[in-house]
Amino acid sequence: MKFGLFGGASSRRGGVARDSTQGYRDFIGYVEEAEELGYHSVFLVEHHFTGFGQVSASLNLLTYLAARTTRMRLGTAVVVLPWHNPVLLAEQAATVDLLSGGRLEFGVGKGYRPNEFNGFNVQPADAQELFEESLEVIRRAWTSEERFTHIGKHWTFQDIVVEPPPIQRPHPPMWLAAGSAGGLKWAADNDFNLLLDQIASFDLIQERLDIYRDAIEGSGRTFDPMNVAVARALHITHSEEEREQAHQQRARLLSGISRLSKVREGGGPQSTMLQYNDTRLATEEGALIGPPEEIIERLQRMRAGGVEYVLLIDITGSRESLRLFRDEVMPALA
Amino acid sequence: MKFGLFGGASSRRGGVARDSTQGYRDFIGYVEEAEELGYHSVFLVEHHFTGFGQVSASLNLLTYLAARTTRMRLGTAVVVLPWHNPVLLAEQAATVDLLSGGRLEFGVGKGYRPNEFNGFNVQPADAQELFEESLEVIRRAWTSEERFTHIGKHWTFQDIVVEPPPIQRPHPPMWLAAGSAGGLKWAADNDFNLLLDQIASFDLIQERLDIYRDAIEGSGRTFDPMNVAVARALHITHSEEEREQAHQQRARLLSGISRLSKVREGGGPQSTMLQYNDTRLATEEGALIGPPEEIIERLQRMRAGGVEYVLLIDITGSRESLRLFRDEVMPALA
Repeated sequence: MKFGLFGGASSRRGGVARDSTQGYRDFIGYVEEAEELGYHSVFLVEHHFTGFGQVSASLNLLTYLAARTTRMRLGTAVVVLPWHNPVLLAEQAATVDLLSGGRLEFGVGKGYRPNEFNGFNVQPADAQELFEESLEVIRRAWTSEERFTHIGKHWTFQDIVVEPPPIQRPHPPMWLAAGSAGGLKWAADNDFNLLLDQIASFDLIQERLDIYRDAIEGSGRTFDPMNVAVARALHITHSEEEREQAHQQRARLLSGISRLSKVREGGGPQSTMLQYNDTRLATEEGALIGPPEEIIERLQRMRAGGVEYVLLIDITGSRESLRLFRDEVMPALA
Repeated sequence: MKFGLFGGASSRRGGVARDSTQGYRDFIGYVEEAEELGYHSVFLVEHHFTGFGQVSASLNLLTYLAARTTRMRLGTAVVVLPWHNPVLLAEQAATVDLLSGGRLEFGVGKGYRPNEFNGFNVQPADAQELFEESLEVIRRAWTSEERFTHIGKHWTFQDIVVEPPPIQRPHPPMWLAAGSAGGLKWAADNDFNLLLDQIASFDLIQERLDIYRDAIEGSGRTFDPMNVAVARALHITHSEEEREQAHQQRARLLSGISRLSKVREGGGPQSTMLQYNDTRLATEEGALIGPPEEIIERLQRMRAGGVEYVLLIDITGSRESLRLFRDEVMPALA
């Protein structure tokens, strides 16, 4: 079983008194130590306009991490295609792939946060179309050895050749977060690796993995378990009291995520991550919270169902936690 | 007098046989050595769709250099605003500023290459308007502590706060390439530092510097000579024959740049860099080509006219050349 990290740094506004860079510096040190400890990857979230300093330029932070690491895979989870010019994005991502020596894992999405749609003035009803058109441009930009022209509904590019080419051929692995049966099949049919979310219960993860694997194998391809990464919150606790507090803290966080993601009236895309009640039940059935032996038991259950790759959302964000997991959990799954 | 580097890496397509990353790796090592040798800055060009591998994602390469250097200033020369979403660009540039510890020098332009306008499907006639609107959004994104809404002709953003904030306050220094009297005055009046191009003769550089300085001082501000950077081609030669070859090579390169920049019929923006004949005269009157004593003499002449900051376009691109300039030219200007 392999383990990566899922998350990001944070910055804060607030004038000269506050050091807005500390969160980024801490995160970089944390990732450097994770590489030394044998973690396989880091996937960065990307969000805009939150007001609490989530990473907005994930490909820039990944470029910095590319210079500070040598082995870890460097992922986005996810770049929302409808916000970006697909050609500039293809150039930027290929540059990260080049500078990292071919370590980019390119996770993409359609977007789900109403404040981001509103902020960028993108209509939620256009998200699917923008996503598909952007994807077509990016794949062509990465693989075409000849100049090409794209005249689409949302984007036009004329007589272009996109440089640099990515190192990984035909292009970096692309990842998609999916949850519905249709979405899972679409991901499999369109050569996406699969990100499974941090909130779904262990049983639901199993169900989704099976749908995706069946779709891959049903089309005659070989299923590679490293092409499915399951995000899981991690909080190793040392007492029953600490365990209880960790669950309550987790439930509050899920409520916060849920509020940010409330779908506006009139519909629009909805995150597959958010189709759960943000209750204590969700944290009991979805998170890796507890003493090492409880976490090992949960991971073994996931592994029995075919999960071989877990992205940890380390709730404490501490290097101590990275070491504890490596020392007390990883060996049992080796 | 201070000296920076002006240029970039290159990559090439061409299948598995060719190592498309070598040019980037060489360039990174070259910049690392330049920092050790006491060079003050590196400014990267950014171009798209050339087919010969010019850097397209300059802010990503600068992010990588931010991790590999500790002191050098990191500049763009230039990011063409009409190609970019101004909010994404503000986020990316602020992230470079944060990760570099406040070392970003943000050079911007309106664009001048017809193949880039055509490639991005931007009308040359809109370039000035796009430039001005984008600039307004970027400055506001960097300085507003409150959420804001921008409803412009080309861009709409609603209820946004842009994160992370840059470290440098109110924002990173902004640079503009200008050449005409109107452009020079506009740069001075709008708080831009000034990039003077690599092709103009020494006399013309002097004339432009004077116009810019007069505009700064005329508005009651103090002129800082480090706010004007003059790009100059550098080729240190060891014999008359080598000197002659270097001039011929330079003249051929200028012809190439000129071809890429030919203005389409019907007009549109024109680079101030390109209002010269690409003749031997231009290279004699504009470049630092020759033995160290000739280069020192030219630099002393520029310094006498108020130039204190020169960005070297090192034609050989060799580390040997970096060392030679440091050892045989810099001491005379110290």
